[in-house]
Amino acid sequence: MLVEFGDTRVLCTASVTEGVPRWRKGSGLGWVTAEYAMLPRATNTRGDRESVKGKVGGRTQEISRLIGRSLRACIDLKALGENSIVLDCDVLQADGGTRTAAITGAYVALHDAVTWLADRKSLAGKPAAVMHRSIQAVSVGLVSGEPRLDLMYAEDVAAEVDMNVVCTGDGDFVEVQGTGEANVFRRDQLDALLDLGVLGCTELAAAQQKALAS
Amino acid sequence: MLVEFGDTRVLCTASVTEGVPRWRKGSGLGWVTAEYAMLPRATNTRGDRESVKGKVGGRTQEISRLIGRSLRACIDLKALGENSIVLDCDVLQADGGTRTAAITGAYVALHDAVTWLADRKSLAGKPAAVMHRSIQAVSVGLVSGEPRLDLMYAEDVAAEVDMNVVCTGDGDFVEVQGTGEANVFRRDQLDALLDLGVLGCTELAAAQQKALAS
Amino acid sequence: MLVEFGDTRVLCTASVTEGVPRWRKGSGLGWVTAEYAMLPRATNTRGDRESVKGKVGGRTQEISRLIGRSLRACIDLKALGENSIVLDCDVLQADGGTRTAAITGAYVALHDAVTWLADRKSLAGKPAAVMHRSIQAVSVGLVSGEPRLDLMYAEDVAAEVDMNVVCTGDGDFVEVQGTGEANVFRRDQLDALLDLGVLGCTELAAAQQKALAS
Amino acid sequence: MLVEFGDTRVLCTASVTEGVPRWRKGSGLGWVTAEYAMLPRATNTRGDRESVKGKVGGRTQEISRLIGRSLRACIDLKALGENSIVLDCDVLQADGGTRTAAITGAYVALHDAVTWLADRKSLAGKPAAVMHRSIQAVSVGLVSGEPRLDLMYAEDVAAEVDMNVVCTGDGDFVEVQGTGEANVFRRDQLDALLDLGVLGCTELAAAQQKALAS
Amino acid sequence: MLVEFGDTRVLCTASVTEGVPRWRKGSGLGWVTAEYAMLPRATNTRGDRESVKGKVGGRTQEISRLIGRSLRACIDLKALGENSIVLDCDVLQADGGTRTAAITGAYVALHDAVTWLADRKSLAGKPAAVMHRSIQAVSVGLVSGEPRLDLMYAEDVAAEVDMNVVCTGDGDFVEVQGTGEANVFRRDQLDALLDLGVLGCTELAAAQQKALAS
Amino acid sequence: MLVEFGDTRVLCTASVTEGVPRWRKGSGLGWVTAEYAMLPRATNTRGDRESVKGKVGGRTQEISRLIGRSLRACIDLKALGENSIVLDCDVLQADGGTRTAAITGAYVALHDAVTWLADRKSLAGKPAAVMHRSIQAVSVGLVSGEPRLDLMYAEDVAAEVDMNVVCTGDGDFVEVQGTGEANVFRRDQLDALLDLGVLGCTELAAAQQKALAS
Repeated sequence: MLVEFGDTRVLCTASVTEGVPRWRKGSGLGWVTAEYAMLPRATNTRGDRESVKGKVGGRTQEISRLIGRSLRACIDLKALGENSIVLDCDVLQADGGTRTAAITGAYVALHDAVTWLADRKSLAGKPAAVMHRSIQAVSVGLVSGEPRLDLMYAEDVAAEVDMNVVCTGDGDFVEVQGTGEANVFRRDQLDALLDLGVLGCTELAAAQQKALAS
Repeated sequence: MLVEFGDTRVLCTASVTEGVPRWRKGSGLGWVTAEYAMLPRATNTRGDRESVKGKVGGRTQEISRLIGRSLRACIDLKALGENSIVLDCDVLQADGGTRTAAITGAYVALHDAVTWLADRKSLAGKPAAVMHRSIQAVSVGLVSGEPRLDLMYAEDVAAEVDMNVVCTGDGDFVEVQGTGEANVFRRDQLDALLDLGVLGCTELAAAQQKALAS
Repeated sequence: MLVEFGDTRVLCTASVTEGVPRWRKGSGLGWVTAEYAMLPRATNTRGDRESVKGKVGGRTQEISRLIGRSLRACIDLKALGENSIVLDCDVLQADGGTRTAAITGAYVALHDAVTWLADRKSLAGKPAAVMHRSIQAVSVGLVSGEPRLDLMYAEDVAAEVDMNVVCTGDGDFVEVQGTGEANVFRRDQLDALLDLGVLGCTELAAAQQKALAS
Repeated sequence: MLVEFGDTRVLCTASVTEGVPRWRKGSGLGWVTAEYAMLPRATNTRGDRESVKGKVGGRTQEISRLIGRSLRACIDLKALGENSIVLDCDVLQADGGTRTAAITGAYVALHDAVTWLADRKSLAGKPAAVMHRSIQAVSVGLVSGEPRLDLMYAEDVAAEVDMNVVCTGDGDFVEVQGTGEANVFRRDQLDALLDLGVLGCTELAAAQQKALAS
Repeated sequence: MLVEFGDTRVLCTASVTEGVPRWRKGSGLGWVTAEYAMLPRATNTRGDRESVKGKVGGRTQEISRLIGRSLRACIDLKALGENSIVLDCDVLQADGGTRTAAITGAYVALHDAVTWLADRKSLAGKPAAVMHRSIQAVSVGLVSGEPRLDLMYAEDVAAEVDMNVVCTGDGDFVEVQGTGEANVFRRDQLDALLDLGVLGCTELAAAQQKALAS
Repeated sequence: MLVEFGDTRVLCTASVTEGVPRWRKGSGLGWVTAEYAMLPRATNTRGDRESVKGKVGGRTQEISRLIGRSLRACIDLKALGENSIVLDCDVLQADGGTRTAAITGAYVALHDAVTWLADRKSLAGKPAAVMHRSIQAVSVGLVSGEPRLDLMYAEDVAAEVDMNVVCTGDGDFVEVQGTGEANVFRRDQLDALLDLGVLGCTELAAAQQKALAS
């Protein structure tokens, strides 16, 4: 599925394989992992391809790990059974918030994959037990001291504080990452950003339900 | 630009940089190169990312070189002046003929880039002198002994002979690559495939003109 | 300097080079970066060397980036002038909290390097202007629902929530990273972890002052 | 065996291993693959070693794939049985046409390997069934508009069109690759090049028979 | 264990794994291998990390191979049984003679590992049969024509001849490597260096016995 | 030049470039380096290509460094002037003693290159001053307790001690490397091997003179 947040466009797909990596065989548990990447011309200035450079950069790995960790929080790996799901999040166009858009979209792709497995009767548990929560993510930040939701690229660069908030549909936290970049931040600012992040995730949860219903 | 041939979808972009690689500096000549890649889920079965494997595969390099070579045939590198253009061809969805779709789409992207350079008065020559030919490419093949144009994936696998034909808008050849795969082929079969390839390219030339006009 | 937190031992050194990377030349700004690594036998079970594997793993890169980002928050790169400082944090023995120990120790190493530069009259600004804040970091977590400071490895594995808090000596935040691992967490739990993290950092600030005084 | 075409010298060897790669096990089919390489001083100007650069270049991979594909066209992989043959083609000295010299020489090396397997009674089929065709290759090109056979390096650089033709001993085509390099080419020129290529291959077929007889 | 020779400090550890590499399975023989590395700031000028460069340098590999070969000379791989031991020698601080310090220290670490295996009754033979010799190493050299033992870094750079001598506790040779660097050397100089090397090794043998006794 | 020792065949070439690597510019000194490699089928069992594996193995690097070091001992880098010479030693067929054959052959290739430079008047010093010594190398070993010169592969594997001796034409030593492999060796055995090595080198010096004269 193609997720669009403003001018940010991320293609999220889920690929299912029967079986799990060797180190997990016989555990009865499934596995979910993610790979994030940007097309070279997703940004305004062309970036070098990581395949050509021969290694995956630190930022790419960090985001891939965040997406995988976030999505594993919404899935019961026992109920999934020994199946593996790879979530590919490829950014076609980037205008800020690509990692949170990827998480939000990957949830829908993962849900579809689990439904497909259920239809094939390949799940160890019931679909509802497998996907026992929904996951959403937003980026929030302080721009000129003001908390802002869903920073676009121009704002992102100007933000004093940049925070990613990953929530469940029930408003609990899965992951919170706040970085002062050029600046540090006070506790009351952190609290305001967290409030705004939870609010943003609630809206996304509704949008996800709509996407899954269609 | 997004090129679509049947279920094949390739995103083609051209990125311009002032200046040329070190080995070409002071020559007065520009440079055009191409990078082809497939998203991991472009095909029905997920392929590993080349960035994760840490090297670009032989097939990918071969196609990137073919696209670059083909597009350099339509551009006067002297008239381009010391500018570099990278053509990125990313396959979002693959159903046969991705390399020829990439060449055909890259021509349009290249044309746009040259026009943009002309608007900025950054060309050494006039736009028409820079792009003195148009370039198109099709894949043709023998299926059950019959010549076929634009093989889809299912046919491609079944084809006894697979041929890529790159032509100019004037019907001349830029590149011809025919492979017997499992089979060999006779001269009369080769001739029939070449005829069909030229015909296919002529149709594409018209489509390109339409795309550029819009 | 060698930092010890319980059984965790990290060797932190700062290496100064005159000049800055090419992309920063002529900016008048300095640069601070960090490299984190673990000796293969730092943990109980030997890990493969990243040099032998031929690539730096995602976790290593993520931590190196965190350390660099955190330490850049305490230094005025303009007052540093066009000097580069590399912070090497090598884990000789690991028992939980290696990344936060590395940040806390790297601050002392960085301070020493800046003093050394000041003695050589190689700073653009005064030492106090260069290092205008102190930086500390702790790991906190929820174990059986209880907030805990400085998790040891056995606890770390059992923790439902794992959080790294990077603070300044004034109690402001530089970076906050909380991960639910197997579990999600409520806002009140997050608040309690943040309180505990700030408290821990305050204690470390005192210890750093003692180390710098000696 | 050492193949010499003018000043081009290529060492071609075939190495047999019992068994096939994992993905082919149990298929009853054999496997033939090729690796092409140039010694650093094969050309007049020393080239960097690909082992030192840490990756195999696009040109090398493209040629290795071409050799493998061409030679698989002359062998019945079922009659070969589950044996693997690697064809190594190492260019000691290069003066144009190295890839076609490699294919022509690799056929003789492959034939020897199959005979050796037959002597050890390790073939699934009879030798004649295994090698049911011979394979030859030549490079042809247009120099000053004239079709030329077996281009030497100086001519190769000057050639407007460069074409490799791989044929069977019966005059059928296995692979045809024509590239306009700086120029495009007309259909009648392509036809003349194909005629010349087939002619050249016929001569080589006779030379191969002599080599195998001795 | 931490070996200190003057200002040279090397951390030597032995890690035991049950089983042996695939190519050795079923042989009844064990395996001992070594990995040497330098922390980036072990020397006065920071060196780049080999993990970041993506490959292990020639000097590092050469020393790792030397350590492994030397230590295999003191162990009966049959009596060890199908166990693998990796010797990690990490140089924390370097002031000449790091490779010989590593060999001398690795012997003690290896001895401890064998004792540990004996305590677990995991050896095929008796401990004394497994470690049937002790191994020591020193570096000797000619400085201003004079033979010198245990060159420190400043001397090492000035040395006309640099030689590493690896001996058994019985005064036999395991390995001898002498290099003229800028100069060549006469037979009588070589003899003097060998005498001095053997003498140095004898002293180290006593020190090792003390370390093992404690 | 092609060196042959028994069934060992090594192709040694010297390639000259004007100028020196960046770190040596302006020093007035030249540079000599070597690269050793084996064709995959040089041995009886095919080895994997290092270019395909993506890294140069430890043994290859060790030998390349030995060859470079040995040949630098016979050349006055000041008299060479700011010229670089790369010595390529490619083993076409291996039957023991490839590294010593490479050194002996590389001397002749280097001599030719220096003469070529002298003819072009590109040397800082006179040819005789540039190449002020000759260099030879042999491998010797103990087989069944007996010292043997120029071990062939079958003997090499059986040798209890394997030693490489690099000498100057005057009988001085440039490099001595003796390895006990499975066994240790006594001082009197070492002395006998050194005597034999010097003797062997003397014979090679005569052969080199003959090759240079022709």
